[in-house]
Amino acid sequence: MRDYPLAKVYQTIEPGPVVLLTTTAKDRANVMTMSWHMMVDFEPPLIACIVSDANYSFAALRKTRECVIAIPAAKLASKVVEVGNTSGRDIDKFAAFGLTPVPAKRVGAPLVAECLINLECKAIDTRLVNAYGLFILEVVKAWADPKQKNAKTIHHGGCGTFVVDGETIKLRSKMR
Amino acid sequence: MRDYPLAKVYQTIEPGPVVLLTTTAKDRANVMTMSWHMMVDFEPPLIACIVSDANYSFAALRKTRECVIAIPAAKLASKVVEVGNTSGRDIDKFAAFGLTPVPAKRVGAPLVAECLINLECKAIDTRLVNAYGLFILEVVKAWADPKQKNAKTIHHGGCGTFVVDGETIKLRSKMR
Repeated sequence: MRDYPLAKVYQTIEPGPVVLLTTTAKDRANVMTMSWHMMVDFEPPLIACIVSDANYSFAALRKTRECVIAIPAAKLASKVVEVGNTSGRDIDKFAAFGLTPVPAKRVGAPLVAECLINLECKAIDTRLVNAYGLFILEVVKAWADPKQKNAKTIHHGGCGTFVVDGETIKLRSKMR
Repeated sequence: MRDYPLAKVYQTIEPGPVVLLTTTAKDRANVMTMSWHMMVDFEPPLIACIVSDANYSFAALRKTRECVIAIPAAKLASKVVEVGNTSGRDIDKFAAFGLTPVPAKRVGAPLVAECLINLECKAIDTRLVNAYGLFILEVVKAWADPKQKNAKTIHHGGCGTFVVDGETIKLRSKMR
């Protein structure tokens, strides 16, 4: 994995791909599947996400205020579903599903080696956590896998239905 | 347009399509392009979105606490960019770009006739508006165009680059 510019992080999250979210608590790493997230600001890149208190990851994220958001390519779709269908309460999901945790640089949560993008995040605002499980995260370090530069991502439409990226169109725009 | 069940609204927003957001202030309707939004809860459906105070829509949304989120199909991509490149300060974007405002049932902001989904929303939590322009919206009424049931949506990757929905894959999942 190589350094990825923080100024371009929004281009990886704004299209709305399914992501994996990793946390570490008591020296034990966990990973969950997440689709409820959005960009909040360009730079430093801020991301909002919803982690329900029904998720095992919730307590770890609230306590450590650190996580990694990792973007899987479409070829990992079946692992994404397995991660989403199980709980870190019961199993080590990295071992169970053949995902490789790699130490991050700025946070205690691990990167996911198989993913095309990894974003090291710190929670900077937890005012809406009690009401909605809404965390505001700052991306403090970003990584990209140069071998997966043009990989297609997946978008969750509910109940295990995913839309894979199709064609790309480029229109003249002043939008960032 | 026909009634669309509130319980299924998350399936339209969770995949991360570009949307249009309409507001009405002083009897004048406006529309902006938005990609920074996410689901917050299933039912009643709650959506979070970022509307910068640099957007002309910001004051109308904050004042009226009402808006419509409309999902355009890929065939509207060029209009979506035109809406994103202009400001309601200067022009009537509905008239300028051939979009048709239709009265909503529960809010003052208009539906967009050409879109496949229209969600009437009320802002229910503005605690993070000053810090990030983050509004928590409750969807109070939803509409779908039955003639566009299988329409493909678009996802913004920055700078006028859009990914169109590709193939759909269905995996066995316990995820909602």
